Amino acid sequence: LTSIFELDTPHLLIDLDATDRNIARARSYCREHGYNFRPHIKAHKMPEIAGLQVAAGAVGICCQKIGEAEVMVEAGIVENVLVTYPIVGEEKIKRLARLAERCRLTVAADSSIALENVFRAAQLANVEIGFLVECDTGGRRLGAQTPSEAAALALEASSEPGIAFRGLMTFPTSPGTRPFFEETCELLGDRAVEAAILSGGGTPTLYRTHELGGVNEVRAGEYVFGDRAHLTNGVIPAEDIAVAVSATVVGRPTADRAIIDCGSKTLSSDIMELADGAPRDLTMGLVKEFPEARIVGLSEEHGHVDLKNCSERPRIGDRVTVMPNHVCSCVNLHDVAALHRSGKVEEIVRIRARGKIR
Amino acid sequence: LTSIFELDTPHLLIDLDATDRNIARARSYCREHGYNFRPHIKAHKMPEIAGLQVAAGAVGICCQKIGEAEVMVEAGIVENVLVTYPIVGEEKIKRLARLAERCRLTVAADSSIALENVFRAAQLANVEIGFLVECDTGGRRLGAQTPSEAAALALEASSEPGIAFRGLMTFPTSPGTRPFFEETCELLGDRAVEAAILSGGGTPTLYRTHELGGVNEVRAGEYVFGDRAHLTNGVIPAEDIAVAVSATVVGRPTADRAIIDCGSKTLSSDIMELADGAPRDLTMGLVKEFPEARIVGLSEEHGHVDLKNCSERPRIGDRVTVMPNHVCSCVNLHDVAALHRSGKVEEIVRIRARGKIR
Repeated sequence: LTSIFELDTPHLLIDLDATDRNIARARSYCREHGYNFRPHIKAHKMPEIAGLQVAAGAVGICCQKIGEAEVMVEAGIVENVLVTYPIVGEEKIKRLARLAERCRLTVAADSSIALENVFRAAQLANVEIGFLVECDTGGRRLGAQTPSEAAALALEASSEPGIAFRGLMTFPTSPGTRPFFEETCELLGDRAVEAAILSGGGTPTLYRTHELGGVNEVRAGEYVFGDRAHLTNGVIPAEDIAVAVSATVVGRPTADRAIIDCGSKTLSSDIMELADGAPRDLTMGLVKEFPEARIVGLSEEHGHVDLKNCSERPRIGDRVTVMPNHVCSCVNLHDVAALHRSGKVEEIVRIRARGKIR
Repeated sequence: LTSIFELDTPHLLIDLDATDRNIARARSYCREHGYNFRPHIKAHKMPEIAGLQVAAGAVGICCQKIGEAEVMVEAGIVENVLVTYPIVGEEKIKRLARLAERCRLTVAADSSIALENVFRAAQLANVEIGFLVECDTGGRRLGAQTPSEAAALALEASSEPGIAFRGLMTFPTSPGTRPFFEETCELLGDRAVEAAILSGGGTPTLYRTHELGGVNEVRAGEYVFGDRAHLTNGVIPAEDIAVAVSATVVGRPTADRAIIDCGSKTLSSDIMELADGAPRDLTMGLVKEFPEARIVGLSEEHGHVDLKNCSERPRIGDRVTVMPNHVCSCVNLHDVAALHRSGKVEEIVRIRARGKIR
């Protein structure tokens, strides 16, 4: 295989040149501002891409589910693995213990129950496991609700044998992060406990971290490939969007409608969550070759394309490339990705952590 | 493994008793009204379930992508395979030819180009391939736009050596189906061409087919497991919804909020497309054990559960089962399903056609 245009469609395409530029941009930003950078592998799920990120100076990696971390550790990425997910359930404790035997591991959580489970895994493995307290600094997902709640859990972690309390973590970095982290650190300072890691995250605020402040480590996933949401929000320039899905026009039932062979089982149903205040965008991706075309809906295997604003219109058999709304959900639907440079395929790579939901 | 409650979470669960009842209901409905029934495997993607459907008297199966059909044929389901998708592209033609050598195959399409591709596959394989003309009888996706357009393509198919013109197909069966099919059949009758198969589809209208009329074959996929959309629309009774995802409460950051360990990578982001006129429902699933709880949003691996209307509230570590909005997108995210009866696991089955997007 030499060209992406020879691949059967639909096919996930990853532009390695754009990927390199995205990795370099995040690296130089973090170097300039003195942040440690920790890529979140949920966006790409490929040890090959994690390897590029680590080679570019990442402090380690971040995983959401234990299953994702298992894949990365199996592939040799063992230096500094952060699992930003509460460990709950007996099976998870056993798997965390096995993981801790094989890598330098840190886990984030926001409850005494989840902390206790990390402690039990450390006992089982007879190794030390790092711990971060997850703080809700505005994201309203998980996280200690107040600095005193966060400090109490941090103190609990510091007193556990087998647990190395390493700091605080939040998602996303927001205007609330700095005051929350500062106040928590003060409370901990009074007890002579240090939060060495202050970890914030999220691609939307990645390049504004210095304005928001309060953190010394930045986690991001989507920055590596970008997607239509990050293009629209101005976080990643158009030429650096590395992810696309190649598709074929399989029908032209009317003058104004084309059907392409990628639907919600290929692109995901994720709509664009735009900036605060902007309305949600219910369209489903950008057709690069026909920029006036709009994907107005997705069946499972059909992309419904409205051509009414198009001066030139695609014919049955034409190849198009579609930029997905949300890279993470899209990548997770594919067994393989074609890694290419300027359209020349370098490698077809299995997306090894795809579907690792446990 | 004996109980679904011993499986690590999140896990896809399929209730075989409910599945049996759904299969029996569709069978008796179709027998009563004299319809052939053809299950669409896109909903379950498991040859094991297709086997149950065929054993219950299905006339054959329906697949969307060639990759799905390849999996089913490999598993021995070869009697009567319908691919309701236009074949476009050289690689697809070759794969269709190989498929035609291994099963009794029919393909639907709505263009001369796609018909020509079926003809080329038939030539390559040196076997006859059946052909249905896809008609747009109101669905506004693919399909010939008028009876005369449909008849013209049918006549073209009838004149091709290697192609066996077998009839008309539409999705979904709607009030427009009967007049469209009748008019097309009249036009064909004038030319002494018979449309033996008149195939309609879609679970929402499955049990109203006799009211809508115009078809002699019914295709349906979601009927076999149901989901929250079909529960809400009244098509499948609550006790017969066979699909669920088991999850664990991993966080209780506030009194009103629980976080469960299934998100959009486990349930999909599909919102509910309710009946015409009803507003879209943006909530993401039903928590069976806490019916007053509402899943108000999904991160990739977090389900955000609003508990404010709950009298009883779940604790960290509690197991819950979630009914997904849309069964097809949900099943397609899972590598395996636990097939169970009354919560006792009979088999962990690999979802072999998952991700077969080509």
